[in-house]
Amino acid sequence: MSTFVLVHGSWHDGSAFQAVIKHLEAKGHQAFAPTIKGHGKGVNKNVNHAECTQSIVDYIVDKDLTDIVLLGHSFGGTIITKVAEAISERIRRLIFFDAFVLNDGESLTDNIPPNSQVLFDKLAFESDDHTMMMPFEIWREMFLNDADLQLAQSSYAQLSSEPYQPWIDKLDLKLFYSLPIPKSYLYCTEDNTLPQGEWGWHPRMSNRLGQFRLVQMPGGHEVMFSNPIGLAEKIIMAGRD
Amino acid sequence: MSTFVLVHGSWHDGSAFQAVIKHLEAKGHQAFAPTIKGHGKGVNKNVNHAECTQSIVDYIVDKDLTDIVLLGHSFGGTIITKVAEAISERIRRLIFFDAFVLNDGESLTDNIPPNSQVLFDKLAFESDDHTMMMPFEIWREMFLNDADLQLAQSSYAQLSSEPYQPWIDKLDLKLFYSLPIPKSYLYCTEDNTLPQGEWGWHPRMSNRLGQFRLVQMPGGHEVMFSNPIGLAEKIIMAGRD
Amino acid sequence: MSTFVLVHGSWHDGSAFQAVIKHLEAKGHQAFAPTIKGHGKGVNKNVNHAECTQSIVDYIVDKDLTDIVLLGHSFGGTIITKVAEAISERIRRLIFFDAFVLNDGESLTDNIPPNSQVLFDKLAFESDDHTMMMPFEIWREMFLNDADLQLAQSSYAQLSSEPYQPWIDKLDLKLFYSLPIPKSYLYCTEDNTLPQGEWGWHPRMSNRLGQFRLVQMPGGHEVMFSNPIGLAEKIIMAGRD
Repeated sequence: MSTFVLVHGSWHDGSAFQAVIKHLEAKGHQAFAPTIKGHGKGVNKNVNHAECTQSIVDYIVDKDLTDIVLLGHSFGGTIITKVAEAISERIRRLIFFDAFVLNDGESLTDNIPPNSQVLFDKLAFESDDHTMMMPFEIWREMFLNDADLQLAQSSYAQLSSEPYQPWIDKLDLKLFYSLPIPKSYLYCTEDNTLPQGEWGWHPRMSNRLGQFRLVQMPGGHEVMFSNPIGLAEKIIMAGRD
Repeated sequence: MSTFVLVHGSWHDGSAFQAVIKHLEAKGHQAFAPTIKGHGKGVNKNVNHAECTQSIVDYIVDKDLTDIVLLGHSFGGTIITKVAEAISERIRRLIFFDAFVLNDGESLTDNIPPNSQVLFDKLAFESDDHTMMMPFEIWREMFLNDADLQLAQSSYAQLSSEPYQPWIDKLDLKLFYSLPIPKSYLYCTEDNTLPQGEWGWHPRMSNRLGQFRLVQMPGGHEVMFSNPIGLAEKIIMAGRD
Repeated sequence: MSTFVLVHGSWHDGSAFQAVIKHLEAKGHQAFAPTIKGHGKGVNKNVNHAECTQSIVDYIVDKDLTDIVLLGHSFGGTIITKVAEAISERIRRLIFFDAFVLNDGESLTDNIPPNSQVLFDKLAFESDDHTMMMPFEIWREMFLNDADLQLAQSSYAQLSSEPYQPWIDKLDLKLFYSLPIPKSYLYCTEDNTLPQGEWGWHPRMSNRLGQFRLVQMPGGHEVMFSNPIGLAEKIIMAGRD
């Protein structure tokens, strides 16, 4: 039985994984989904990437979790790479779940298509607090493409605005790329939030990992909502041994 | 409940969607599959792309269909873009189903691999009436790759020669690319009629749509024959809200 | 009913297909899985590509098999192209199953990523007998990504070291590319042994075949172990008519 720590992506907080955790626990595993600093509703959004990382490091160390399978979803991929640098000895395997794998020295925004860069720059600039709110139409069409309108709406209601600074911070990842921790990439085959092909999640991001275990499942970027049991099953496969 | 108008591709007529329509109706939807001018057996094949488009516009206007989900298969993708320009106010959503999405100013033949251009040029040149007949071996291996020989044969018997002029007409699509109509791309993952990769349907064609809802299903280019119920289910998903 | 000859890949011998053959026979087909010369445990590994090919030609001729569906897995793809040149009249269809399709004049190692070339060069150089043994971690993560650790271990125990000479022999394939034998490519969608994308199996290798029948299934490079019944079903589809 494994200990999973699931790190959410942008606009989310740890509650996004509620149904997934329930199923992982039903299968006998331990699973935790901390909320990254500056994320969730009603909190101070003035954070940088290092503070985001530190909040997850603190969570794992405070609970003294060891031998963990550490999963990062989407933006959470940038977090788990830096968490792995900080506390590699506690980590048995990393799972990148439709997640960013940055090259050394890059920021997240260096890795999204030019038109998306323009959109998110604009959203952050127009906000009061250097955050981006997700436009509903993008959420429904690009993120929840595998769900009905009702689920697109109910899941949208759980979102909160995303701090922009962690997206533009350049990350030193030299240590990460020297770590011998085993890695998996879990890819949802209908995920089109990064347009498939030249700018897509897989194989563009995944291949940066070098040797990794590829696991795929049907669905879009938010299968924790549209198919949480299926996702839990694939997390178990991606994380076994 | 939705009103679907399904526009067939080359070599076909509207009857190709018979089994799909039956299932859409069984689920409570309205569904129509007009035959494009110059298509089908025993008709005058001397048509250009504008006449093809006009025949579908006329069908929709004559029946006074509104709030429609307009689907185009393959070549039919080039038709629905021009229909959308003509009667955008009647269209709720466009579905491109393994369909061409042309760039402004291009023709269909600008979008197929060089060896296919040569083949179809030759077929049209050698015909009496500037049409192309589908060679059976290509149909069986590339179009019906997911079916048995019997279905490849029975579906082949329904084909008729395809007018070449609509394939080589250059289309002005500036208005199309300014329309705010929501769009879906429905892709069959074993469709190899355009060779997957550099010249493939998805993501090459689909990404031209900008924001779109991606839906995928197993199967080749002719799932209306090899899996009509599965196709109907995916059309419903692609077309919902 | 068909006669299948299944040619294994590197590190394997014919016993890799045991469970697949059982299922093919249960469905009424004949199926054979010869061991390529220089492959398997306890044999002389000093072979070149021509000798490998000849051993399969001899097997087919000695048994006087005709009208066969000849399948090659992985490295076995390079064998069946040369077998087809030698005895094309006995072959009804070729199936490339996650297999190399070399361009005329190339070797297998010309077709793997630079870092893999370095790895296998090193393994061969360090061996006593110009062979490469498969490192277990690569086997478990990249080849058996769709299986549990126990199956990764039990299948690994069946491997033997792979002669390197057949990997570096340049193959004259002019005749192969002129043969009118129908071809199928069977691709497992989670096969990451060649990294998906620029260096991947499909569509990079498959498109070299020109017209071919595409069949896909879920799974990694070694579905003969992780899903032999599913593989047998797809072989039947790839090989029908």
